[in-house]
Amino acid sequence: MSTAESTFSKGLEGVVAAQTEMSFINGTEGVLEYVGIAIGDLASKSSFEETVFLLWNKRLPTAAELEAFNAELREDYTMTDALKERIKACPVDAEPMHVIRTMISSMAMDDPSPNENSVEVARHKALNILATAPAIVAAFDRHRRGLDIVDPDPSLSFAANFLYMLNGEKPTDAMVRAFDICMITHADHGLNNSTFAARVVISTLSDMYSAITAAVGSLRGPLHGGANEGVMKMLNQISDVDSVESHVMNMIANKERIMGFGHRVYKAKDPRAAELMTLAKQLAEDTGNMDLYNKSHAIELVMEREYAAKGIYPNVDFYSATTYHCIGLKLDLFTPMFVLARIAGWAGHVIEQLGDNRLYRPTTDYVGQHAVPYVAIKDR
Amino acid sequence: MSTAESTFSKGLEGVVAAQTEMSFINGTEGVLEYVGIAIGDLASKSSFEETVFLLWNKRLPTAAELEAFNAELREDYTMTDALKERIKACPVDAEPMHVIRTMISSMAMDDPSPNENSVEVARHKALNILATAPAIVAAFDRHRRGLDIVDPDPSLSFAANFLYMLNGEKPTDAMVRAFDICMITHADHGLNNSTFAARVVISTLSDMYSAITAAVGSLRGPLHGGANEGVMKMLNQISDVDSVESHVMNMIANKERIMGFGHRVYKAKDPRAAELMTLAKQLAEDTGNMDLYNKSHAIELVMEREYAAKGIYPNVDFYSATTYHCIGLKLDLFTPMFVLARIAGWAGHVIEQLGDNRLYRPTTDYVGQHAVPYVAIKDR
Repeated sequence: MSTAESTFSKGLEGVVAAQTEMSFINGTEGVLEYVGIAIGDLASKSSFEETVFLLWNKRLPTAAELEAFNAELREDYTMTDALKERIKACPVDAEPMHVIRTMISSMAMDDPSPNENSVEVARHKALNILATAPAIVAAFDRHRRGLDIVDPDPSLSFAANFLYMLNGEKPTDAMVRAFDICMITHADHGLNNSTFAARVVISTLSDMYSAITAAVGSLRGPLHGGANEGVMKMLNQISDVDSVESHVMNMIANKERIMGFGHRVYKAKDPRAAELMTLAKQLAEDTGNMDLYNKSHAIELVMEREYAAKGIYPNVDFYSATTYHCIGLKLDLFTPMFVLARIAGWAGHVIEQLGDNRLYRPTTDYVGQHAVPYVAIKDR
Repeated sequence: MSTAESTFSKGLEGVVAAQTEMSFINGTEGVLEYVGIAIGDLASKSSFEETVFLLWNKRLPTAAELEAFNAELREDYTMTDALKERIKACPVDAEPMHVIRTMISSMAMDDPSPNENSVEVARHKALNILATAPAIVAAFDRHRRGLDIVDPDPSLSFAANFLYMLNGEKPTDAMVRAFDICMITHADHGLNNSTFAARVVISTLSDMYSAITAAVGSLRGPLHGGANEGVMKMLNQISDVDSVESHVMNMIANKERIMGFGHRVYKAKDPRAAELMTLAKQLAEDTGNMDLYNKSHAIELVMEREYAAKGIYPNVDFYSATTYHCIGLKLDLFTPMFVLARIAGWAGHVIEQLGDNRLYRPTTDYVGQHAVPYVAIKDR
């Protein structure tokens, strides 16, 4: 159904598919702003909760507003009994991303009015999903380890509460801060694939659960959120820092993809990677993982030497791998961490879309035959 | 991140977002072809199973191929015990669309290799989802009615097996044929929103389950698959055929939307509606529902008189409402019927996308402020 004027831009590259006031990216200069505020400022000065308020309200909260926001979020930490039972019924060998997608989808079944889409109601549903998702991840991980589910602690921040529910003990301040910064830096990033999927789905005026569920499904793909697992796998293949040079040069010679380098958007350094590098180093020191950090840094130096002129730098996935490992996360919980943070962005884009909606309904180039006769089966 | 050359086409209207060999739509002339074959020919001469083969293989099957396809499909009719238990654990007052989305998502947890994406494996996964979805719908409907789940009968066609599992008795031939035609006519329809959502999600190389789950979430929106429920609600509000004229004219005077008329794509008659009208009339006669058919037809005549010059005709949702009612479906199972049929289209587009993939990653127009300072909370 194409017209003479229409052009097929594969992957919609360069096509503007939404207007937003949430994040601004200048890949050439390595700039990322949330509502105009530089990501570096937010990572060093803000909290994840405040960042979510910023993204959803397009301004920083007053002290009273932040207190009210935190109070509602913490009230929502607790899962329904039905949801807990569903998690316990999940096969212990299921991939966490499939579990999370299914469990977030299932939350609609416990909501007495899941389809309400006024911006105000959508915001409450989003806050509930944001508050519950860490409990889902932690509960499933404990379920598969044969441990009892740890109930949330509403006296704790989003970051601290997750680490507490996961490990059953209060995390150190450094771990909480590190995890909080990971959440801040992953909260939103323009019209990435999962965010776009959420906007596409909500544009039928379906519901917040359907939109976030779609986004989780998108994020698990290796061309999107799955990438930080690839970094960790590569790091695990390299025995020590002295082997980095030969390992990486071999990969380059064999034209293998070095995970965690290059980004479709950033041609300059990924501004989120700088924050994470600092963080990863500190955590590695604190947790006795300097071997891992040193390997990562050595890879970066080799890549910089080989490719910097071509604009290939570590992306946000590269140092998040080291960071998450140091926090004590298993490999298949890396992408779920991306979910926890990005729910903020997904929900914010859904709210923007609901505020000025138009159904996404692009067209196709039909490249097949026309007027084909239906031949009876005996004559085929 | 827009450039001077990029333009924002709201809803991506007129933007070509994929190439396909599956369906061709000419809205102006009211043409719909699957792989070049007119929808009218398929509706009158083909079966849903053959149509699915056509869409997935871009040609009609030989007799032997169709037999093999049917054999695999029928083997997959049976749900896993885990899936059955999950359905029985769903709240009986949940909306079926939320249940279906969640249960299809959950199927990934029972698949030992859910993430395999070779075209051949993706096709098997698609066939399994297609074969299992009717069992999910029927089982949940019986669960909420307090009835035992009816196991599938692999001696029956897709259409007959669904009606058997739903009602616990063998359907009449007319019901099977009618339902089969509904499935054929709803199997694919270009890059509608749910199909687009499936392509967007699979483009991260996630997995078939994530893609189909996203599509179900999209379809439930009132601007998409939810529309045929609206038609039935309107029909229920009109007491009898004699009240149609005044009811519709009142709605027009009050600028209320008449559900089931007009379509973003079709400016001429929706070619699928003609098939369904014939079908609906026959079924209404067979099942003692001529009152309902007569009301529908009277609405069409009023609308034709008032609007035909402006190109407003009944769309596919209009007569599917009467049809589904006559088959004995409750209102909230109307959109699920759309799911059963459209899985064919969704999966076919996913397979096309996997065959020539590129990540969907459009851009945004950032319309907010820049270089906003982070003001400390005490100073706000």
